[in-house]
Amino acid sequence: MVLPEAVPILFIPGASVLGIFFAFWLWKRVAQIQLVGGQSVVARGNGREYLLEEEQRGEEEVVAKAADIQGAISEGASSFLFTEYRYLGIFMVIMSVLIFSLLSIVTPEEGRTKEDELRNGIFSTIAFVLGALTSILSGYLGMKIATYANARTAVEARKGIAPAFMCAFRSGAVMGFLLSGFGLLNLFVSIAVFKQFFGDDWKGLFEAITGYGLGGSSIALFGRVGGGIYTKAADVGADLVGKVEKDIPEDDPRNPAVIADNVGDNVGDIAGMGADLFGSFAESTCAALVVSAVSSLGTSHDFVGMTFPLLISAAGILVCIATTFIATDLKPAKVIAEIEHTLKMQLIISTVLMTPVAYFVAVAALPEEFTLQVPGSDPEKPFDTKVVKNWYMFVTVAVGLWGGLLIGLQTEYFTSNRYKPVQDVADACRTGPATDIIFGLALGYKSAIIPTIIMAVSIYIGNSLAGMYGIATAALGMLGTLATGLAIDAYGPISDNAGGIAEMAGMGEDIRERTDALDAAGNTTAAIGKGFAIGSAALVSLALFGAYVTRAKIDLIHSSILDPKVFAGLLFGAMLPYWFSAMTMKSVGKAALAMVQEVRRQFNTINGLMEGTARPDYKKCVEISTSSSLAEMIPPGALVMLTPVVVGAFFGTQALAGTLAGALVSGVQLAVSMSNTGGAWDNAKKYIEAGNTDHARELGGKGSDCHKAAVIGDTVGDPLKDTSGPSLNILVKLMAVESLVFAPFFYNCAQGQGLVFQWLGQV
Amino acid sequence: MVLPEAVPILFIPGASVLGIFFAFWLWKRVAQIQLVGGQSVVARGNGREYLLEEEQRGEEEVVAKAADIQGAISEGASSFLFTEYRYLGIFMVIMSVLIFSLLSIVTPEEGRTKEDELRNGIFSTIAFVLGALTSILSGYLGMKIATYANARTAVEARKGIAPAFMCAFRSGAVMGFLLSGFGLLNLFVSIAVFKQFFGDDWKGLFEAITGYGLGGSSIALFGRVGGGIYTKAADVGADLVGKVEKDIPEDDPRNPAVIADNVGDNVGDIAGMGADLFGSFAESTCAALVVSAVSSLGTSHDFVGMTFPLLISAAGILVCIATTFIATDLKPAKVIAEIEHTLKMQLIISTVLMTPVAYFVAVAALPEEFTLQVPGSDPEKPFDTKVVKNWYMFVTVAVGLWGGLLIGLQTEYFTSNRYKPVQDVADACRTGPATDIIFGLALGYKSAIIPTIIMAVSIYIGNSLAGMYGIATAALGMLGTLATGLAIDAYGPISDNAGGIAEMAGMGEDIRERTDALDAAGNTTAAIGKGFAIGSAALVSLALFGAYVTRAKIDLIHSSILDPKVFAGLLFGAMLPYWFSAMTMKSVGKAALAMVQEVRRQFNTINGLMEGTARPDYKKCVEISTSSSLAEMIPPGALVMLTPVVVGAFFGTQALAGTLAGALVSGVQLAVSMSNTGGAWDNAKKYIEAGNTDHARELGGKGSDCHKAAVIGDTVGDPLKDTSGPSLNILVKLMAVESLVFAPFFYNCAQGQGLVFQWLGQV
Repeated sequence: MVLPEAVPILFIPGASVLGIFFAFWLWKRVAQIQLVGGQSVVARGNGREYLLEEEQRGEEEVVAKAADIQGAISEGASSFLFTEYRYLGIFMVIMSVLIFSLLSIVTPEEGRTKEDELRNGIFSTIAFVLGALTSILSGYLGMKIATYANARTAVEARKGIAPAFMCAFRSGAVMGFLLSGFGLLNLFVSIAVFKQFFGDDWKGLFEAITGYGLGGSSIALFGRVGGGIYTKAADVGADLVGKVEKDIPEDDPRNPAVIADNVGDNVGDIAGMGADLFGSFAESTCAALVVSAVSSLGTSHDFVGMTFPLLISAAGILVCIATTFIATDLKPAKVIAEIEHTLKMQLIISTVLMTPVAYFVAVAALPEEFTLQVPGSDPEKPFDTKVVKNWYMFVTVAVGLWGGLLIGLQTEYFTSNRYKPVQDVADACRTGPATDIIFGLALGYKSAIIPTIIMAVSIYIGNSLAGMYGIATAALGMLGTLATGLAIDAYGPISDNAGGIAEMAGMGEDIRERTDALDAAGNTTAAIGKGFAIGSAALVSLALFGAYVTRAKIDLIHSSILDPKVFAGLLFGAMLPYWFSAMTMKSVGKAALAMVQEVRRQFNTINGLMEGTARPDYKKCVEISTSSSLAEMIPPGALVMLTPVVVGAFFGTQALAGTLAGALVSGVQLAVSMSNTGGAWDNAKKYIEAGNTDHARELGGKGSDCHKAAVIGDTVGDPLKDTSGPSLNILVKLMAVESLVFAPFFYNCAQGQGLVFQWLGQV
Repeated sequence: MVLPEAVPILFIPGASVLGIFFAFWLWKRVAQIQLVGGQSVVARGNGREYLLEEEQRGEEEVVAKAADIQGAISEGASSFLFTEYRYLGIFMVIMSVLIFSLLSIVTPEEGRTKEDELRNGIFSTIAFVLGALTSILSGYLGMKIATYANARTAVEARKGIAPAFMCAFRSGAVMGFLLSGFGLLNLFVSIAVFKQFFGDDWKGLFEAITGYGLGGSSIALFGRVGGGIYTKAADVGADLVGKVEKDIPEDDPRNPAVIADNVGDNVGDIAGMGADLFGSFAESTCAALVVSAVSSLGTSHDFVGMTFPLLISAAGILVCIATTFIATDLKPAKVIAEIEHTLKMQLIISTVLMTPVAYFVAVAALPEEFTLQVPGSDPEKPFDTKVVKNWYMFVTVAVGLWGGLLIGLQTEYFTSNRYKPVQDVADACRTGPATDIIFGLALGYKSAIIPTIIMAVSIYIGNSLAGMYGIATAALGMLGTLATGLAIDAYGPISDNAGGIAEMAGMGEDIRERTDALDAAGNTTAAIGKGFAIGSAALVSLALFGAYVTRAKIDLIHSSILDPKVFAGLLFGAMLPYWFSAMTMKSVGKAALAMVQEVRRQFNTINGLMEGTARPDYKKCVEISTSSSLAEMIPPGALVMLTPVVVGAFFGTQALAGTLAGALVSGVQLAVSMSNTGGAWDNAKKYIEAGNTDHARELGGKGSDCHKAAVIGDTVGDPLKDTSGPSLNILVKLMAVESLVFAPFFYNCAQGQGLVFQWLGQV
């Protein structure tokens, strides 16, 4: 069965628009929570969406204060993002010039004309700009939604767990559906428009479209790194002076860095992550499209078959809409113990629902058999063909889909404080911070085992069945439930911020307990989200790598690990994640020190600050975080952006192939272990604080020596889990997509031998 | 110019024996320091080798006490090693049966007979046993020398820096020359004896000899892991109760774990490291020999040419003897500031001297031109030939030699407290342990950049000039100055122990200051030694990997990173160092907790312990460290030993090739950063304690908050730098040599396709 052409033309934009509408509908429901004092009690009375009379006392001021704080956070976040966008604007201009000029000057090969190269240069540049703008918009919208939702979640927490959870979850879903619908629609329209200029040249079209992925991921890199440094500089700075020196609670309004800390959650964890996952989605689609363009689908102009990657994503949106109703209407979390379960069920249900849908899409959209080009071994004939059946593609999508779920579940096991690993780490705090840290590091290392095996198996299956197309579709499968993944991922920082606002607005201890419980689940879902992001990034990068190898005309022989250039590249590439992490961690350290000095200064010079009679200068701290994070994001950004260009042009395409593979295999491990170590430390601390079990109570609770040790572990984990770790997957995929875009240029430099070796050969 | 055959026959054993004699001569000079009270003043009066009258007061008891403590340490170390050897004996029996049976049952290929396979099985097994026994003996001798030297160093420290330095350095050199002379002699004799049974079959001979490397490295693995867990369990346990809870100084004799801690230095840092470097030497020689056997040197029976790797090592011994005289007689360290410089000069001078020697050996031993087999790209003709000039081999040796020096120097920069990186880490202690740890981790990551680039360049040059033979000879070049490297490496733990003995014997504060200064330099040289060990292990592993690929009949096409099996293996392999580190770190944590409980028990139940009137039960702590480290070393050991066999047999030779390469590129980074992070934290602590500069004094010195933060960092670093980090390079090379030995068996399993895939193919 093969669908008529009209189906993808209607279904893909239709599903995207439906996703966007669904996001707006959810938003409307969140917006019903009013942030004007006294209004929130006039809810519709289902569940317990009202306040008892005694709870209403003083509520007007509390709500007004929450609204006020939300305003400050939103303003700080916007100001950071707009300043960041000025930097990114400059970057985009430079990069556009670079892309256009390097690609347009390429000497055309046989069968291509000067005009072909020029067209590739122009449209790659346009695609880059489009991708970058979409990514910026995604991040910005995510931030807006999150800052809109956080005070509302805090206000709802006064009524109980259920309404607060609902508010945070729905807001997360708004972001998830908006981003995935918008991203897909944008990509579809771009392809339709570009098609007018490329005619039947599908290969050229999709190669140019790859610029879209490059734009998306390079913005994501700066977003993650800049936002990551911002959030952790503020967090570490606030903790070191506030919690450690002044002994005031977390998120205490007397702490001058507290607004900056909350702003950080929105710009790092929300905007950065939104841009990151959008990038993964764009890149895996591009990688799949590039490969399918040179398959028999492309040569026989099978439009429906070629849109298979987009159809999977479109179907995913519908599946996620169905899944969301379960959490929001059918079975929402009503008590603390249900939160994590409800979020986990979202992942499981969306995966289960997506599986038959993927099968249907594969058999409906693809011809029963088609052929793919795979790298060949004969220097005379660089490509072999491989026959692929349509159900193979279902298998690869399903492998990615279920692989992602398994990675998510094992991440939950390693980072949730309901399981043994985190409890062991908490237990190690008995003998002080050193053992806490040793056990936490060991936990992170250990947590890399299963995801790596899952990825290795997915890659093996995908590659065996359908070469790099199989890997790209496995990545799309993993991202098939993107909207749900994003929703539960965004849920975390929203809850975290809600807790901060509850504390700052002076809400009661019991409310803070509720937001803490929401937040603890959020730490776990954040780690799950990072697991997804890393897993999909690994698959995406490999698919892009495969496309790069093809475009750079590297055959099997020249990509052997025994080749001197490839192996040297492999070793060099494996080092890059370490270099990058060293930079970002040091940046967090430096920015945090600047913050510490400012916070200390304010405590020392502003009279009445400790007593709560004077207001701290929040704005100054926001400014420090903004300026230092923007200055510090440039060197690591430059490392990632320049490495492929330098290696590719000067040391050749083979060395670059090695570098990409090395960065991929080493970066994945480091990213997984950093994210999980950090998540585990944070939740070990929360485990001791919450004291929900006998074992936890035995550790002494807040203020005990165990707790102090756990706070140190948490602080160490901050840059690991929120700056270095989640940036690493962008490093890996960005280098791959950049190499793919510039492949014709690299090949043009001394036939891919590299300028250095060409020069050495002439000496 | 090509030397007559008699030259290697005389020169190789001659140089080995000379090295051994030199070691005995140095030992005799160390032995002149008498450990009987009152005797040590009757020295020969050159320098200031006498004590002032007031210094002699109470010296008889002090010296007697030092002798007593040394006895206890030596006894503890011997008892640990003998218990460990019982485990290793069982392991060797199992492994011998495995090697013999798996290799003997191989179905002979065309051109080989059943007898050939049987002979390979028998002699591989014999070589394995020989290598294992040599490694055991090396470790044991090293430990004996070190325990003999440590009390003598402490006693000499009463006279000043110069005599103490001399004693520690000479003892280190005893170990260096004994091990390198003995190892080379042993290998040479084995080859000569095996030759009687193999006749003209050089290839068969050297393939069987590879078992020697397997034996050496598998013992080294258990030595490093078992010893590493031992030393750090004792150290962490002693510190956590003694320094943190009871607030008594390090190495205080009241601490029950203090003898175990000092025993640990000898079994982990000395015996483990001796076995490790012996393994690297044996393996790189084996790798070079295997490759040269199938070169034109082998086929034309050019005996002199084939002994080139051994000639380089023999010449290296002579160069190191000359270098040692500089530190012991020409320009010994006389004041604290000179210690590090003198040790560093040893490395530089030996490298400079070795360079022309290597050139001479290359042009004298090798024919002007010869040909090597390199993996081919044509499935019909798996090998291509490559023409190599003799001076190429000088270049590859020199690249390794100088690469090793550069790695050493950069390691010094990152771990010595005389430079900015460690001072920055110390400075980060101002804001508490969390920033100390963040900065330390970042330092470790950063310190991987230069070594990786050096290794990548060495590999590129070696491989481009002479394939895997070039890489093996680069490794030999790096190990060309092995005796000197080992000497300065062993110097560290000897000084560390001397400090412990000085404290326990109740020597004065000034003496402790001298031993601390010796020890601080020792921390740096230990990190340098680990840098060497890692760098050479990387090259050795790659050379072994190359030999494995050849023996497993994998050509360029089937080792492409684009191959599904290879890439999945690459990813899986890159994860192994993390898995292994998680195991070893957790083991240290668990063993340390057991130690903490015992130490606490003794403090609580032995009356008068804190007051110094009762003696703690040192023996019990030694027993706990012994039993828990031996139990804990088995799982990580099994992981390393079983992985190649399982992957090779079940998933095929290509997947194993990927696994080896992945483990190599990822393990190197992790090992370098762990070793340097740990070294930096230790020296940041020592920097604050010593307070030698204005900046250091500003941090507050011993007992300040900064110092407390630094102690926490140091404790975290212990398992990183002394257990997990230095074991990783053994993991990498052991997996490679094991794969090489078992390659015929793997190929025999379903023609190298792997039993799992064979089975899947039949379904």
